[in-house]
Amino acid sequence: MIALMESGHEVRILLIEDNPGDVRLFREAIKECTAPCSIRVARDGEEAKNMLFGNRAESDPLPDLIVLDLNLPKVAGDQILLLIKADMELRSIPVLILSSSSDRAEIRRCYENQASCYVVKPADLGDYMRLVQAWGNFWMSQVTLPPRRPVLGAGV
Amino acid sequence: MIALMESGHEVRILLIEDNPGDVRLFREAIKECTAPCSIRVARDGEEAKNMLFGNRAESDPLPDLIVLDLNLPKVAGDQILLLIKADMELRSIPVLILSSSSDRAEIRRCYENQASCYVVKPADLGDYMRLVQAWGNFWMSQVTLPPRRPVLGAGV
Repeated sequence: MIALMESGHEVRILLIEDNPGDVRLFREAIKECTAPCSIRVARDGEEAKNMLFGNRAESDPLPDLIVLDLNLPKVAGDQILLLIKADMELRSIPVLILSSSSDRAEIRRCYENQASCYVVKPADLGDYMRLVQAWGNFWMSQVTLPPRRPVLGAGV
Repeated sequence: MIALMESGHEVRILLIEDNPGDVRLFREAIKECTAPCSIRVARDGEEAKNMLFGNRAESDPLPDLIVLDLNLPKVAGDQILLLIKADMELRSIPVLILSSSSDRAEIRRCYENQASCYVVKPADLGDYMRLVQAWGNFWMSQVTLPPRRPVLGAGV
């Protein structure tokens, strides 16, 4: 097993998803992963923008991983992806697209805009849980995520 | 299980790796994955450049996934990553960095340059095999990869 984060750190996941059922399932599935993590949820595109581009204080740190639905109220997911990738501080955070759309043009566009990976939401409950667990176990236990930048004033 | 590619297609992996032992291990490990795939190997950075930027004929198609070592003869892996991401046709192909380096600055730079994920090569043989299998099963069976572009003259 490869240490993903500096020891003692839990992986911070930002889940951008407006469907409460999917949020609940995601939380349940991720509990089964071996790596410790915390999940914040943005329930629409505007809330996601505020969380990502609002006050970047130590008390409100950036996520290590972003899970992004595409069909979101207020600001669409593909716009959020563009904003993340245009931001020098955020662009290195891996973004998983988790969407019910299997539209080829949409999938291609997400990869062109540098989503890390695109997963079509399984319709079956069990498949959805297994998918989230596989994603979580791969990204949180085997991938080495981008090192966090030191917080200003907190020393290195 | 989610269909990754149009049915009947095998996933084309380009492995850019100069260490013959690692190539052999990768081939053995990937055999255990459930999805059918083919592996081409570039043994240095120049060979990788030729494969990726040479004649893009139907008989020599682009890969669906790229696995990239960083410490390569002739052209370094981080340069290959920059070239891939600067190319409009190649930039949507997910690039896994598989490197023995755990240097924080290097890891950060790879993510800034839009590697999909960074994995530190496990020193232990069994860990290496499990890592490649987990990567292969996730990317080839659960992720929906970028749709292939139709080949000119081949119809759509």
